[in-house]
Amino acid sequence: MTWLAIDSSQNYGSVALMRDGVLIFESFFQISVTHSETLMPQIDHALQFCKVPKHELTAIFLCHGPGSFTGLRIGMATAKGIAYGLKIPVISFNSLELTAVNLYGCGRYILSALDARMKEVYLAMYDQNLQVLLPPAVVKPEAFTVLITGELILTGSAALIISPLLTARGIDHHIALPHQSRMSAAGMFALYALDPQPLEFDLHILAEMEPLYLRESTAQIKRLQNK
Amino acid sequence: MTWLAIDSSQNYGSVALMRDGVLIFESFFQISVTHSETLMPQIDHALQFCKVPKHELTAIFLCHGPGSFTGLRIGMATAKGIAYGLKIPVISFNSLELTAVNLYGCGRYILSALDARMKEVYLAMYDQNLQVLLPPAVVKPEAFTVLITGELILTGSAALIISPLLTARGIDHHIALPHQSRMSAAGMFALYALDPQPLEFDLHILAEMEPLYLRESTAQIKRLQNK
Repeated sequence: MTWLAIDSSQNYGSVALMRDGVLIFESFFQISVTHSETLMPQIDHALQFCKVPKHELTAIFLCHGPGSFTGLRIGMATAKGIAYGLKIPVISFNSLELTAVNLYGCGRYILSALDARMKEVYLAMYDQNLQVLLPPAVVKPEAFTVLITGELILTGSAALIISPLLTARGIDHHIALPHQSRMSAAGMFALYALDPQPLEFDLHILAEMEPLYLRESTAQIKRLQNK
Repeated sequence: MTWLAIDSSQNYGSVALMRDGVLIFESFFQISVTHSETLMPQIDHALQFCKVPKHELTAIFLCHGPGSFTGLRIGMATAKGIAYGLKIPVISFNSLELTAVNLYGCGRYILSALDARMKEVYLAMYDQNLQVLLPPAVVKPEAFTVLITGELILTGSAALIISPLLTARGIDHHIALPHQSRMSAAGMFALYALDPQPLEFDLHILAEMEPLYLRESTAQIKRLQNK
């Protein structure tokens, strides 16, 4: 049982390998070239370094968004390509829960906030056991408020955008440190362990799997505005 | 300003690169070959993948133990070797604080416990801001107790050894998930940011730097017993 996890949803990438329940490799990379140039080389490096032949993979774990549109498409295409070829399933997770899983059990409500560019943020809120309190949404920060009784911890790439707005509204909160705020591909193995599901290859499910964009792309918005 | 972080203190390894405050690479590896075969190749891979020439490094961050004796010596030798050659400083951190930093701000006391083999564990306790409550020590689990008023979270490779002992003594506690329990080289950048210190090359400090073993090696103990 060898699982490959892939995340190219943000402006950085991460891949991880788990064999029989043991994390054997993970890498994180944030360099000034695109996912199209880094993701496959990092997957190849992981497999070669760990001496895992590609045909040994039994499942792909993918972060399906929200995030960078190009990154999401590269991740989805890569995961589907490998999965079709090997007839193995793809299990997907959203980027907001993947951010929140680092803070599992922190004794507070977890507000995951990712920078969505265009003066918007992707947001979701969880309790400390990752039960969904607010499902993923794209919002304008100034139009957003949280109604909670209890302590709150803010995490993700948009934490510093959201924090002053919470403060201005008198909502006391903590902020996760940078290393707690970034997603790691291995976090998907943790999410899976919290909520296991059957790992079975299904061509239809695989074919219909799509990134979680949460909004139209900039190109699409421009096209609609020009109509 | 480019920093390399190295951890080979446990039965897994991790290297990370930070450039001008941005984490650009990290890898984690736990495969059945020794650190002597994996650590340098992973450092080389990180530098090559990120196109960082070795002479660009300005500091080395090292996890100096406690942990595997061989691993500690390989990590120390590697860090010193690079640092001597480039005349750059080595900043070191202990493995128990490196484990705890994942849980920074968790609203609980953090008990870091690492498997020390020979029916012993390495332990240290911190508050949620990583202030030291119990400094690193090697103890027999059954001889250990904690006196705290407040919530406790248990983390590290020996968490499952310590947990039933705490339960038996009526000490309520949470356990960190596996991905929160493992050290990451990038965690040293987080520790440094919490408590910055001058990064200056000093030949004497470098020469005198030693691993934090916390006890004699098995070989040393046998030698003394046979005297």
